[in-house]
Amino acid sequence: MPSKGNLIVAQSGGPTVAINSSLVGVVQEALEQDAVGGIYGARNGIRGVLEEELIDLRRVPGETLDGLRRTPAAALGTVRHKLSDDDYDRLLEVFRAYDVRYFLYNGGNDSMDTAHRVHQMALEANYELVSIGVPKTVDNDLVGTDHCPGYGSAARFVATAIRDTGYDTESMAPSSPVKIMEVMGRNAGWLTAASVLGREGPEDAPHLVYVPECPVSRETLLSEVEAVYRRLGRVVIAMSEGVRDQEGESLGTALQQEVDVFGHKMKGGASDEVAQLITAEMGLKARVDKPNYLQRSSMGVASRIDLEEAYQAGRAAVRAAVAGESGHMISLVRLSSTPYEFTTGMTPLSEAANMERPLPAEYIDQETGEITSKFVAYAKPLIGDPLPPYFRLPLHYVERP
Amino acid sequence: MPSKGNLIVAQSGGPTVAINSSLVGVVQEALEQDAVGGIYGARNGIRGVLEEELIDLRRVPGETLDGLRRTPAAALGTVRHKLSDDDYDRLLEVFRAYDVRYFLYNGGNDSMDTAHRVHQMALEANYELVSIGVPKTVDNDLVGTDHCPGYGSAARFVATAIRDTGYDTESMAPSSPVKIMEVMGRNAGWLTAASVLGREGPEDAPHLVYVPECPVSRETLLSEVEAVYRRLGRVVIAMSEGVRDQEGESLGTALQQEVDVFGHKMKGGASDEVAQLITAEMGLKARVDKPNYLQRSSMGVASRIDLEEAYQAGRAAVRAAVAGESGHMISLVRLSSTPYEFTTGMTPLSEAANMERPLPAEYIDQETGEITSKFVAYAKPLIGDPLPPYFRLPLHYVERP
Repeated sequence: MPSKGNLIVAQSGGPTVAINSSLVGVVQEALEQDAVGGIYGARNGIRGVLEEELIDLRRVPGETLDGLRRTPAAALGTVRHKLSDDDYDRLLEVFRAYDVRYFLYNGGNDSMDTAHRVHQMALEANYELVSIGVPKTVDNDLVGTDHCPGYGSAARFVATAIRDTGYDTESMAPSSPVKIMEVMGRNAGWLTAASVLGREGPEDAPHLVYVPECPVSRETLLSEVEAVYRRLGRVVIAMSEGVRDQEGESLGTALQQEVDVFGHKMKGGASDEVAQLITAEMGLKARVDKPNYLQRSSMGVASRIDLEEAYQAGRAAVRAAVAGESGHMISLVRLSSTPYEFTTGMTPLSEAANMERPLPAEYIDQETGEITSKFVAYAKPLIGDPLPPYFRLPLHYVERP
Repeated sequence: MPSKGNLIVAQSGGPTVAINSSLVGVVQEALEQDAVGGIYGARNGIRGVLEEELIDLRRVPGETLDGLRRTPAAALGTVRHKLSDDDYDRLLEVFRAYDVRYFLYNGGNDSMDTAHRVHQMALEANYELVSIGVPKTVDNDLVGTDHCPGYGSAARFVATAIRDTGYDTESMAPSSPVKIMEVMGRNAGWLTAASVLGREGPEDAPHLVYVPECPVSRETLLSEVEAVYRRLGRVVIAMSEGVRDQEGESLGTALQQEVDVFGHKMKGGASDEVAQLITAEMGLKARVDKPNYLQRSSMGVASRIDLEEAYQAGRAAVRAAVAGESGHMISLVRLSSTPYEFTTGMTPLSEAANMERPLPAEYIDQETGEITSKFVAYAKPLIGDPLPPYFRLPLHYVERP
């Protein structure tokens, strides 16, 4: 365990609304720990270490720290960077030059790989350093934690947005009966599955949910759309951007094989192609919502629980660092679902690095493809306060004269 | 003025988060007016009258009425339907059969045309009926009112969303520096202009705003993107779906001329094509957000002012109806901007029907295309409470050893 030294914290990968809460947790815990000297924030992830772009976080006013807990995205800036062999020598050089003894890296699978490699590098170089991973991803696909900071808020966004656009579609059903919302998640359906969390009855959106873990043929999809349309006169679909057909190809493949006006491949996702398919085959107007980056940046619908967990994960990371627990990622441990209670734990970085956790089989009905009540029991506490209730008019028709 | 009779209210055109507030205003005022007998809600706009699908709104519980003021979209259902000659005879038949003496139609330009035609039809048929228009549109393009119920909330959504995705883009700038948000508005830029309402400094998003009223060539657009990129290292663009080039063609034209896999014309908007253009010409990754229908259905970011104005417009419509003011649309009249105060007024439906009000010249700098401070002074009160503050880290760099 290092006696005293400087700390570097950095943010990596796609931002979330909660990643600044983790940063503030790190800073506020570090301010309380005698073992920590300088508290440095690296700009744009590991790149800020390589390029010596380090910010003095002891000089951040308390009001700014408090405000950052309600500010989306990565205040330090972030990056996607895979470490090369040259990078290790450079990292060690910087760590030595700045007497860095604590390295806290906040991100997803790739970032946990970086934190793990830094841990190994220090061991091999016999340089006294504690490297700790702080989890973060709206994809919720990290191994070794009940769930990931950032997920609860993005899940709340998706649950809220599908309900809002669902009511809109219900209003417009006579003229535009089909709506598809494209949801983030190329390989894992955690976020798309969260679309069901605001659903109260069988008439509520989403009526169909498609996730990457559950391939669907175009024929099956059309027949499922048809069945819902017959039942309700409208169809609202939550669709992972990475949804695949029975051959494992993206449902957006045909569009992606088109070239655009500049000769590049189109980036149209699965939702555009499926909307076209529904219109062509069923003659129904189909509209698409692509909130894209709003899913991970909409602070207005952040989950109170998520922000708190992200903050506590940051604090726990500093405590783990000064306790010398190099090579670990902070995890979230669920103590109870009702009422929801959590604590933090630790998982070896070697287990989390580069691994992806798809939706387990028990969360998808293997026959129907529907999201199960077990998933709802798992995920609902994470989105925080109940969604405000919406109302429908009771349909008491006036008698014809 | 009719002595006593039944009232029909209907919702028409694209829904908003505020249109149910107007409906509740109508119902609650009608409940207090002795001249009103039955309070009937037509399902799916004028279609519900033609097809005699009328709901007894006196039977709606008070709790549901209160809850509808926080429920997005059109609780009665809505429609896009242009009245035909046959329809008039049928309408009159239904009005007579149900002893309808008050007709309140809640919608945009097309709907005001419908309300106007119903007014004229009753006059010509010598049938005692009061037809009143209740304004509603997120496009804010109705003539004869300071602004339209529904606009303030959609404007708040756009201002909030561009700020959120702006912070996200700022975090990701080293790898993905360009973001385009496509905003509703085929012919008028009111909603896109609202993207500036959360901006506090020159580093804040949006950095560029493109509206239909201000054509822009692809060359100019690229040079403007280049200039912002050089200044900030990132570019966030708010772009109306209807933005046009100097020849009056949609910037999405080239994409729309492509045919999709089913042989239909593509529906890619201007944002997709501009993103491709920026990537092709400047080598920068450009991402697109298309919140689409969330702009008009996201109750979570509704403007408190907007919901109240929509409610009062509904109440005023009933008062105008029992006062016999047939052929009028309720208007919103601004009494003061600071502090914001409003009242309701009336405009002849003949002036509002089918007319569109574009952004006036004083709201766009004719040289630079920038949205002016006059627009901000006009629109800012309409989005209600100030947006919660966001914070940036002060960049005190650690000195190199």
